[in-house]
Amino acid sequence: MEKSQKQNLRIIPLGGQGEVGRNMILFEYQGKILIMDMGLGFPEENMPGIDCTIPNSAYLKKRTKDILGTIITHGHYDHIGAIPYTLPRIGSIPIYTGALTKGMILKRQEDFSNQPQPEIETVKDGSKIKLGPFEIEFFRLNHNIPDNLGFFIKTPVGNIIHTSDFKFDESPVNEPPTNFEKLKKIAQRGILLLMSESTGAEEEGHSLSEETIFENLDKIFKKVEGRIIAASFASLINRIQQLITLSEKYKRKVAIEGYSMKTNIKVAQTLKKIKVKKGTFIKTKDISKFPDSKISVICTGAQGEEDAAFMRIANHEHKFIQIKKEDTIIFSSSIVPGNEKSVQILKDEFHRQGAKVFHYKMMDIHASGHAKQEELKEMIRIMKPKFFLPIYGQYSMLVKHAELAEEEGISPKNIVIAENGQVINLNQKTLSLTKERVPSNYVMVDGLGIGDVGEVVLRDRQNLAQDGMFVIIAIVDRQAGKIKGSPDIISRGFIYLRESKELLKETRKRIIDIVNKAAGSGGAVNWTHVKDELRNKIGEFLFSKTKRRPIILPVVIEV
Amino acid sequence: MEKSQKQNLRIIPLGGQGEVGRNMILFEYQGKILIMDMGLGFPEENMPGIDCTIPNSAYLKKRTKDILGTIITHGHYDHIGAIPYTLPRIGSIPIYTGALTKGMILKRQEDFSNQPQPEIETVKDGSKIKLGPFEIEFFRLNHNIPDNLGFFIKTPVGNIIHTSDFKFDESPVNEPPTNFEKLKKIAQRGILLLMSESTGAEEEGHSLSEETIFENLDKIFKKVEGRIIAASFASLINRIQQLITLSEKYKRKVAIEGYSMKTNIKVAQTLKKIKVKKGTFIKTKDISKFPDSKISVICTGAQGEEDAAFMRIANHEHKFIQIKKEDTIIFSSSIVPGNEKSVQILKDEFHRQGAKVFHYKMMDIHASGHAKQEELKEMIRIMKPKFFLPIYGQYSMLVKHAELAEEEGISPKNIVIAENGQVINLNQKTLSLTKERVPSNYVMVDGLGIGDVGEVVLRDRQNLAQDGMFVIIAIVDRQAGKIKGSPDIISRGFIYLRESKELLKETRKRIIDIVNKAAGSGGAVNWTHVKDELRNKIGEFLFSKTKRRPIILPVVIEV
Repeated sequence: MEKSQKQNLRIIPLGGQGEVGRNMILFEYQGKILIMDMGLGFPEENMPGIDCTIPNSAYLKKRTKDILGTIITHGHYDHIGAIPYTLPRIGSIPIYTGALTKGMILKRQEDFSNQPQPEIETVKDGSKIKLGPFEIEFFRLNHNIPDNLGFFIKTPVGNIIHTSDFKFDESPVNEPPTNFEKLKKIAQRGILLLMSESTGAEEEGHSLSEETIFENLDKIFKKVEGRIIAASFASLINRIQQLITLSEKYKRKVAIEGYSMKTNIKVAQTLKKIKVKKGTFIKTKDISKFPDSKISVICTGAQGEEDAAFMRIANHEHKFIQIKKEDTIIFSSSIVPGNEKSVQILKDEFHRQGAKVFHYKMMDIHASGHAKQEELKEMIRIMKPKFFLPIYGQYSMLVKHAELAEEEGISPKNIVIAENGQVINLNQKTLSLTKERVPSNYVMVDGLGIGDVGEVVLRDRQNLAQDGMFVIIAIVDRQAGKIKGSPDIISRGFIYLRESKELLKETRKRIIDIVNKAAGSGGAVNWTHVKDELRNKIGEFLFSKTKRRPIILPVVIEV
Repeated sequence: MEKSQKQNLRIIPLGGQGEVGRNMILFEYQGKILIMDMGLGFPEENMPGIDCTIPNSAYLKKRTKDILGTIITHGHYDHIGAIPYTLPRIGSIPIYTGALTKGMILKRQEDFSNQPQPEIETVKDGSKIKLGPFEIEFFRLNHNIPDNLGFFIKTPVGNIIHTSDFKFDESPVNEPPTNFEKLKKIAQRGILLLMSESTGAEEEGHSLSEETIFENLDKIFKKVEGRIIAASFASLINRIQQLITLSEKYKRKVAIEGYSMKTNIKVAQTLKKIKVKKGTFIKTKDISKFPDSKISVICTGAQGEEDAAFMRIANHEHKFIQIKKEDTIIFSSSIVPGNEKSVQILKDEFHRQGAKVFHYKMMDIHASGHAKQEELKEMIRIMKPKFFLPIYGQYSMLVKHAELAEEEGISPKNIVIAENGQVINLNQKTLSLTKERVPSNYVMVDGLGIGDVGEVVLRDRQNLAQDGMFVIIAIVDRQAGKIKGSPDIISRGFIYLRESKELLKETRKRIIDIVNKAAGSGGAVNWTHVKDELRNKIGEFLFSKTKRRPIILPVVIEV
């Protein structure tokens, strides 16, 4: 390693650059590695059957001895969700994070009972730790979950700020407002590089204060007389707190529905991060014991997730909750891109059953916990960094965030837009993208399999979904040199076979012709070639008749 | 039929109620049927491989002799797209519509060359026709395509207005502004029922005038120096006109990319519904002959459609257009719900290649041709109907539109929210939903098949996409009473077989055990039972090992 290279800090995003979710970034200095966040991503539309995606840990796997530790910003799954999948691959490394985040990580770990307990040290606003060449000071920033921490990292090349997800909030839930004075003091140390989150970079203006959201929700609570059924994210602790507080204000009992929301609330309650009066919570099976005007249900599923409580309620599949005309439904979180249609279907279903529906378009009751343009620019003005690296967001958001930084006077040559797997070099003089790439392709989680669903399996799933499949089973009598009986055909997802007898008859005839021609030739038969022919010719024939291309799977058995 | 029933007008929506698209409504009076619109719908997310959906024509099929004709509002596919699929089922019936709509229907019909030419009579603003008991007068309303017509229908029970899709526009493209005087005059005849479109019912305010959109586009054209590549809908004739006009203003040549857009422009040009100066259009292959600052490309694919020109350009698959850093990309249409993620991916790809990207969030350059709340209320105020039926939209939009009508003083008992297939009775005194239902479930079009993909095939496709499939082929030696050799396994979309040898070995062992146990019993073997066992036991085993549930297809062959 050359001296100049030795003096660079290497910054390597493994996820979250060019996507919303799967956040994970590495710092590497003289061979020592610090990890920031370890999140999961939602599967893309072209990933049927996939539960989630996680960052690729191939680069880390070869370097386990060099990993100093992981620092985690906050407890949302796009920041902690990959921990149980990644730690078994890279070894048990110490994690440093806030109390609630620690609680949520440990709670989730219970679902992975065969794994050792991760080693987590609690830090808070003002905590300082030293990991190899890195001195990290944690500082509080508001988001929509308690214990959200940004990082001030003193490195040998200079001081770096990592903002976590954040918004500037003058009146947040259960936490003090943004401490601008403290941020300015940190900035006075001189910031070489600001790494700031980009989710809201394409949104004009300033995010709503949690207080405004509370007031808007209050307006609904005030006038509603029937039950209130409100859906949110399981980890949107602040919104859950608001719904509980309002229920208490209007003397409503609260039933929580959804396993993950229940466990998160339990963790938050134990840590006193959520305030619930004694007697507020009731079991869902008991809601009928109270008048409708005294009932709130808070549940998971505001994104239209198929198995969540909200969907089960809408589909008449919930044991204790059936929609009545007097019910009021609140969608209290904004829609994750890609879920718009599912949410619409869910909303329509509630409407159909006669309930009153409130959603984020109608009132500002949604949950954006992310700084919008005005706040992002303010963060840049406060930190006055020499270099700027927009992190965490779709590529278009990173580009827009870079433009905002330029507007704030940062020279374009001091701004880098990086993608997952790209290696960025930082020293006192330059921030630059290198040509080096580390593996960063999606690792897909499907059931118990991590990374075993790759391009091939995924492409097969896509093709199967498009036009189904068509298995041909031909038994060949070796001695007679011809097919035995009629070939079996098994098909799924292609065409309704019972109503396609003519097509099947014609297809069988062609199969017999192809096989007999080969088998009856007298010489040795190249069955691989015969199968190829079946695949191609039967495929073409079916396409000509249907304009569909099922996956053709020929099986030839000699007896 | 009782006399009271005889005097009812029956209104039967076959599509478009509770969905955006697939618009088609029937009027039936004393057995005679009038059809309004015949549109296609986009496939839902849970319909892999489906090209589009069309209204169910089962009710009409039995009544072909009673059909008087079809009146069509305008040339968008969600209003005309089902014509070539439906006419062959219900017989050739006369169609009445505007000149451009006629041109677009006939052009599309060329793709269905084995069908007879539909019989279409051109009508325009002020045209009157009589079909059985219905006297129809067509009147012009602005939308984002020329020749958009609303219907005033005099029926034996009273006068009815059908608004088509519309917006009130003071300065539209190539057409006169909304003629409020004429609308008021029509209203003076006394309107029993207003049927008004609902797409914009959840949007506050007033839609943008086409002039405002033009000015916003002009701001982009004015400052851009490189090429402009703008995407839109193929049938969004007004937006295409604006892009052409601006190109001419800034001395840019225009290349059109995308088959359907080209044909629509050709039709519109022939009918003088779109104005293009001589020499403006060039072939795409010639764009390199002009300076970049003198080139516009207008193409299909603003929704992120996979095969469209825009996507091919983004993916480096276009023969003549590769993105340069100096290019400016314009997404000039709003996003159809469900396409948000595809559009984001496309946008990111253009950003990545360094182009400047404009999309509807950044400037008001999107295409909503639909009346928003203020216009919808104005329409109600102008028509002063006794009864109100919100049409064309998601269920939540119909509900909101009904609320708007209530705000405008229409009694809730005079408003009906109807779903596809419900029969609505109208007479001078009441508008009411009956309990009668006609078939209205989705008819899916897939390749050459219309309606042959049903629930079963679709569910198989969904399951195949989730976890793939697993075919077991066991050859049984009848005499020996046991399995012959090792069972064949064919699997796709489940797991990467080459890396799962241990699992396969264990699975084969279990297959052999199950089959041998049955075959070696001595007596007659119930192979159906054996197959069930294979399906269940092997399915459970694979699930226990992978938490995935591929479709198991057992084949047992006795030799």
